[in-house]
Amino acid sequence: MGAGFPIAQLAHAELLSAKPEETVRFFTDLLGMQVTERRGGSTYLRAYQDPYHHSLVVTESDDAGLGHAAYRVSSPADLEQLAAAIEATGLGRGWSDSEVGQGRTYHYETPDGHRQELVWELPRYQATSDETSALSCAIQKRPLQGVPVRRIDHLNMLAADLPATKEFFVDTLGFKCRERIEMPDGQELGTWLSVSPFPHEVALLADATGHRGRLHHVAFWYGCDTHLNDIAETLRDYDIEIEAGPSKHGITQSPFLYCIEPGGNRIELFGAYGYTIHEPDFETRTWTAENLAVGGSMYGLELPAKYFAYGTPNVEITADAMTDVFEHRPAAVPVP
Amino acid sequence: MGAGFPIAQLAHAELLSAKPEETVRFFTDLLGMQVTERRGGSTYLRAYQDPYHHSLVVTESDDAGLGHAAYRVSSPADLEQLAAAIEATGLGRGWSDSEVGQGRTYHYETPDGHRQELVWELPRYQATSDETSALSCAIQKRPLQGVPVRRIDHLNMLAADLPATKEFFVDTLGFKCRERIEMPDGQELGTWLSVSPFPHEVALLADATGHRGRLHHVAFWYGCDTHLNDIAETLRDYDIEIEAGPSKHGITQSPFLYCIEPGGNRIELFGAYGYTIHEPDFETRTWTAENLAVGGSMYGLELPAKYFAYGTPNVEITADAMTDVFEHRPAAVPVP
Amino acid sequence: MGAGFPIAQLAHAELLSAKPEETVRFFTDLLGMQVTERRGGSTYLRAYQDPYHHSLVVTESDDAGLGHAAYRVSSPADLEQLAAAIEATGLGRGWSDSEVGQGRTYHYETPDGHRQELVWELPRYQATSDETSALSCAIQKRPLQGVPVRRIDHLNMLAADLPATKEFFVDTLGFKCRERIEMPDGQELGTWLSVSPFPHEVALLADATGHRGRLHHVAFWYGCDTHLNDIAETLRDYDIEIEAGPSKHGITQSPFLYCIEPGGNRIELFGAYGYTIHEPDFETRTWTAENLAVGGSMYGLELPAKYFAYGTPNVEITADAMTDVFEHRPAAVPVP
Amino acid sequence: MGAGFPIAQLAHAELLSAKPEETVRFFTDLLGMQVTERRGGSTYLRAYQDPYHHSLVVTESDDAGLGHAAYRVSSPADLEQLAAAIEATGLGRGWSDSEVGQGRTYHYETPDGHRQELVWELPRYQATSDETSALSCAIQKRPLQGVPVRRIDHLNMLAADLPATKEFFVDTLGFKCRERIEMPDGQELGTWLSVSPFPHEVALLADATGHRGRLHHVAFWYGCDTHLNDIAETLRDYDIEIEAGPSKHGITQSPFLYCIEPGGNRIELFGAYGYTIHEPDFETRTWTAENLAVGGSMYGLELPAKYFAYGTPNVEITADAMTDVFEHRPAAVPVP
Repeated sequence: MGAGFPIAQLAHAELLSAKPEETVRFFTDLLGMQVTERRGGSTYLRAYQDPYHHSLVVTESDDAGLGHAAYRVSSPADLEQLAAAIEATGLGRGWSDSEVGQGRTYHYETPDGHRQELVWELPRYQATSDETSALSCAIQKRPLQGVPVRRIDHLNMLAADLPATKEFFVDTLGFKCRERIEMPDGQELGTWLSVSPFPHEVALLADATGHRGRLHHVAFWYGCDTHLNDIAETLRDYDIEIEAGPSKHGITQSPFLYCIEPGGNRIELFGAYGYTIHEPDFETRTWTAENLAVGGSMYGLELPAKYFAYGTPNVEITADAMTDVFEHRPAAVPVP
Repeated sequence: MGAGFPIAQLAHAELLSAKPEETVRFFTDLLGMQVTERRGGSTYLRAYQDPYHHSLVVTESDDAGLGHAAYRVSSPADLEQLAAAIEATGLGRGWSDSEVGQGRTYHYETPDGHRQELVWELPRYQATSDETSALSCAIQKRPLQGVPVRRIDHLNMLAADLPATKEFFVDTLGFKCRERIEMPDGQELGTWLSVSPFPHEVALLADATGHRGRLHHVAFWYGCDTHLNDIAETLRDYDIEIEAGPSKHGITQSPFLYCIEPGGNRIELFGAYGYTIHEPDFETRTWTAENLAVGGSMYGLELPAKYFAYGTPNVEITADAMTDVFEHRPAAVPVP
Repeated sequence: MGAGFPIAQLAHAELLSAKPEETVRFFTDLLGMQVTERRGGSTYLRAYQDPYHHSLVVTESDDAGLGHAAYRVSSPADLEQLAAAIEATGLGRGWSDSEVGQGRTYHYETPDGHRQELVWELPRYQATSDETSALSCAIQKRPLQGVPVRRIDHLNMLAADLPATKEFFVDTLGFKCRERIEMPDGQELGTWLSVSPFPHEVALLADATGHRGRLHHVAFWYGCDTHLNDIAETLRDYDIEIEAGPSKHGITQSPFLYCIEPGGNRIELFGAYGYTIHEPDFETRTWTAENLAVGGSMYGLELPAKYFAYGTPNVEITADAMTDVFEHRPAAVPVP
Repeated sequence: MGAGFPIAQLAHAELLSAKPEETVRFFTDLLGMQVTERRGGSTYLRAYQDPYHHSLVVTESDDAGLGHAAYRVSSPADLEQLAAAIEATGLGRGWSDSEVGQGRTYHYETPDGHRQELVWELPRYQATSDETSALSCAIQKRPLQGVPVRRIDHLNMLAADLPATKEFFVDTLGFKCRERIEMPDGQELGTWLSVSPFPHEVALLADATGHRGRLHHVAFWYGCDTHLNDIAETLRDYDIEIEAGPSKHGITQSPFLYCIEPGGNRIELFGAYGYTIHEPDFETRTWTAENLAVGGSMYGLELPAKYFAYGTPNVEITADAMTDVFEHRPAAVPVP
């Protein structure tokens, strides 16, 4: 059956933070997420429409970055088959049975070195009686704290070797490429990959610094564009840096707001999807230098330079790397 | 792979109308749809994010109702396998090669008598140069007419024999049941079926009149809740009956507006989805008499009685049928 | 100068409640209001864009209802002149200097017996350093609790003697009548009065029960229609009765949600104004039986019967009174 | 009475355009405005909630710019008194009786040379029977063309001599200053003036080029923030330059979109007001260099350099002038 994907969804992401308590408070106080467990140096959180024990882990670390990301597979058989396929690539890092809030887990790395996990067994979150909604189809009540996000949406990783990393997601893991940016010299600057009608659960951006395994951002979903205004006002009032937005990307037609959480990781808040893909033979859309400005912003305006250079862990960006970055950006974006 | 569906999407619906020109003007002038072809007594239309030649056919007829609905399969092989499976049930009505704007087509009926089609080959709509958007991922520009809907969303059919019809959609066609209403006597009053993370592409409501093969509504998608206010104001100003909304159902958590197009068919306008299903083992949610009011409206308010009794073709509703209808509705809804 | 009004604004309303702590929690936990003082049996609250010490007082009482409403005058001279004019009508109740959070106050009653106050001196709320926003034009930060309302908007009173009460507001207090409902027999069923470009700071509805001095509702402003969906979901989840909405009235073109706070008083939550009045010679708009359904709801749908009969203090409604109420309502509204 | 203003409202603006037909089509096809008259080289237009014959005049001219702006006074007596007061300043340009769609008119200039008019008699627009809405309080139906704006909102003029121009608006015309930007050297960079609870009907920005009488922008009101997204998508699709937004200013807390109409004039599209002023003794809010970035954008992001330098008629900007402009802007805004 053409539309089947061995990976079903992005289940959670782990963020590293040198200020873990501030990072956690950002997610709880401002984004309305809930702490479900604290263990070792890690805090486990979820949004009110996330079905599982957690969709986010915040772990104390010397530097910011992506600890790991975990995907739920579509069936137990898919777990075995994907693990075998990854094992064959040499990127496998073995099985474990001791992860908090999840069952037997297969560990691996992307070709760029991002740590990843596959899992089938994920215990569902059980709402307390106080939390139970009258809606049969709601996991729990809407929280009263902050501007509550509903669920994790997608992950965007910087990749020094984008072609190899993309190939791994598509050929080994079964993602489909929905949209991509191709420069005149044929280089792919970014790629948007999905296992659903939404244009991306995973995106990859070329990392001009040459560093491997960095995080661009983790995104949480509101499903309502005006909540981006609410959270923007909130972020400003509570001294969180807003990097860009609220606005809409042309690429994926998605409403966005980017901010930097206190630990330094870029977080995207996400509105309602602008289009969805129901065609089984949807053809990848390609953006070029000619229309990249409108790809970055549906309205043809500029994303800030930081958007194209900053990731976590943060690295010093050499003049050469910046040249490389900005040679590939639309001319309209000023060098900072 | 667990998440594969042999049917990929609802491709189009055919509405019968005794006032076809008024019906077409409703869809073009108010909803911003585009006529792509007129042939015989039929007019073919599409919304600006619909990928194919048409998502709607309006056909002259003595009475309102559903002419047929067509689904696109996920692959050519799925077409053959589904046709064979339907053939085995005795509901097949054979192949044709002469449908407007589509390739080889398999015809069949639901157990309740709704005419349906399966098709793989659907030529994509080619935007004219005037229509071409700067967005690589947009099929065409946003229209300047009316409050333009973006694409067809779902189909809701009344079924005298709901259990058999549901079984056919689930067991033969591979839909998953996402939500359902179960009365204290065990009767299923409605069921929401999908082949995607959205809670329904097809819904079925029990038809208490005992008539077979009727239409409850066809829905078009805005993806933005405030557009429901815009279209509501427009419908009122241009003398289209609004039946209910704008509001939100608890069932599927979906923002809705119901109106009656000039030919008499109920049309739903649809906002942004309130939740999406990414779990491969999502368990069907069941609504009962206890929380059905909040299922009808997230805010616990009443849907009008007409909503539960009216369909096309319209039929006289006997007192017995009405009793049967209203015995199964929440007590709060007054008998008209 | 034509546009001057001696009354500048509705400053606050006092609600009586037999469950004052539950009433206060409704306003703080769900609507994000802030307690600024507790004194005697009264709790003083404000929303984050309310400029003064309080916009709401909740006072313990055996029954629900309006304690009083207070208006700020446009100048000290207006206070003296209005007090003198009211004194001449016999409705004056004298001056006081001891009100919490306000200066010298003139007390009076409407012809229907609602207790009212006029005041010039109202100390401004001083944000703490933690609350101070980076916006020079913001009184304080957006709260993180609930779905925070921004300010008090208007007051709607039931009046057994609507004509006399309206005349008092227009002729003595200087309000302008923006919209009104006139029945075929000439009776005025409701009237909307303002001292600004908004269509109402005060509305009056005829009280068919014959009881004097009752409250229909107090309204708080969001200024954003989608916040009505947020608060509706919140009210449902936290077991507050939603009476009607979110929807839009035709009268005043205003987005509304009505709920009943735990003490029994009806509260309106209000979105963004649909039109504003800048013409100095704006002519009063009159609604009649013919278009009253669309006046109640812009979309022509029914307001619930309770809306037309319930007020606080609640009274038993005799069959005769109900007949009188419903004779004057659009036929479409069913007798409960 | 403290709140009275001799000027009631901005009634219309005249835009000069070297491409008048393209300019008119921008307003009709994209913004849904209606042509009410063509006379000489001028076209008269209005939005569907504008009460009078026109709120906009487009007049053929060699260059872009503001032809004139007209204000309606609050009463006939205010017309005489204001005319006398202006006459005393030497800025009067006399009376006329022959303006299209308006009565006896007093002409004058601002100290910076912008041509202005005062008028009392403005015939109201009479909806045709096809246009008449069921809403008693609606002037006409919502148009089906484009993303229809509702009414003219405000006028922003560049002023080489801002202090004198502001003084004229405040002292002679009776506007109140609601917000202002003051630089460390005491220079006022911008000022927002109103005759209503909204923070501005007129704004003035310092013109660093030293040219007199230029236009910054004319604004039209949606009253709904999400319509800014609709019109932004439309403007991009139909090749209209978007200069900034959709976003929100901190100053006036107003949602904005700036675009350049085909004739070269900057047009603002305006969402729902973020706050309103009901206090009769509201104190002017002052923005300084410290928080000006958040004044420009509530979210602390940069307005493009063009916003601070471009006006109509367009003039060459010398390096000195630019230095002067950018010395006074927040450091974060890059010199173009």
